[in-house]
Amino acid sequence: MTNSLASFEKTKLNTVKRMPERGRYDKETLYPIIDAALLCHVGFVQDGQPFVIPTIHARRDDSLLLHGAKASRLLKHITSGEPVCITITHLDGLVMARSVFHHSMNYRSATIFGRGQLIEGDAEKLAALAVITEHVMPGRWADARQPTALELNATTVVEILIESAAAKIRSGPPSDDEEDYALPIWAGVLPLRPQWLATINDPRLSDGIELPSYLQSALGEKGVV
Amino acid sequence: MTNSLASFEKTKLNTVKRMPERGRYDKETLYPIIDAALLCHVGFVQDGQPFVIPTIHARRDDSLLLHGAKASRLLKHITSGEPVCITITHLDGLVMARSVFHHSMNYRSATIFGRGQLIEGDAEKLAALAVITEHVMPGRWADARQPTALELNATTVVEILIESAAAKIRSGPPSDDEEDYALPIWAGVLPLRPQWLATINDPRLSDGIELPSYLQSALGEKGVV
Repeated sequence: MTNSLASFEKTKLNTVKRMPERGRYDKETLYPIIDAALLCHVGFVQDGQPFVIPTIHARRDDSLLLHGAKASRLLKHITSGEPVCITITHLDGLVMARSVFHHSMNYRSATIFGRGQLIEGDAEKLAALAVITEHVMPGRWADARQPTALELNATTVVEILIESAAAKIRSGPPSDDEEDYALPIWAGVLPLRPQWLATINDPRLSDGIELPSYLQSALGEKGVV
Repeated sequence: MTNSLASFEKTKLNTVKRMPERGRYDKETLYPIIDAALLCHVGFVQDGQPFVIPTIHARRDDSLLLHGAKASRLLKHITSGEPVCITITHLDGLVMARSVFHHSMNYRSATIFGRGQLIEGDAEKLAALAVITEHVMPGRWADARQPTALELNATTVVEILIESAAAKIRSGPPSDDEEDYALPIWAGVLPLRPQWLATINDPRLSDGIELPSYLQSALGEKGVV
């Protein structure tokens, strides 16, 4: 599902109220934040009680795709058409100011509002699962053993059209009060990023099976230590 | 605020329904997951609409402490006594099975249910802010310029007693269907962890101010690349 607008309308729902200068509503900013994440936090309401559940997502055009077991409470709720809020946050660093008050974090976050609908039909489900798998690890879908009819039947896939969304970004050095810059206190940024470590073969891996090249390249690009 | 029980009661609210064998309810498991995180995702409901907002937290005994600007919608809502759900997720790796169906992630998550109350009184607010600062970067509170009365007044601090909680953990290699182990497909784990990069001095840092030893040691322990 797509819409032709380059930005989401600022409404009561998505307007960034705290530090509004950090808010962004254009897809060019929002979508890379969504696409760079391996998981999201989905918020939903049941009998007035909020729940926040982490799960894997992938974006397809102007929608998010989620999947899980057919019995999943989260997915059942999402497909009931109730509103959900999905938030993705990348923590890029700690910002150490001279004053306690101006300490902060560098981050990129995306908050998405929408309602889910069930993806039905085996071909449609397979296509969505391929998008999710390829989002997490490009090249894996074609290499792994494909879902059987039973497995596909046990899997629920939902699509959530992004009805409204906002990004919020902070980057750069601390911002202290002018009179504090003379204080003899270290200030700066402690940058942080997710890092791949060396891969671990399955203990039951058959002899002679090497790490596939698409995994090697993906991990290399992302910087294995 | 503390309670003397070592575990949270399993109730309708916190019981892990999907993959129940991954659920944990004891503080010995839950609290290190909370304490290892630099941010959490807070879910709350306003007029039936869920919102999920990332923020810094710290645990003190059986409570979470959050802070922010006095004008913050999140904090205003939390102090209204409405229920909140706070989720923390550490992504530890991607689990590549031979079948698409058995792909998974290794993770440690904590989901916390409670209601907030305002921390009032300057001494109490300062004590809570010190806990938050020391959680994020031990040693920083005593080094940085302390909050003024005006800054303290502009800051809201809330305490959320953990009324109910659950952890969910997956670790280890993939688990494939027995007949798939013979397939010529690589399987294993791609481990992931947050990593500190080299610190960045504030461009306006005065000459001769070195990175303090408490930051050097904290980053060293956490593994700067």
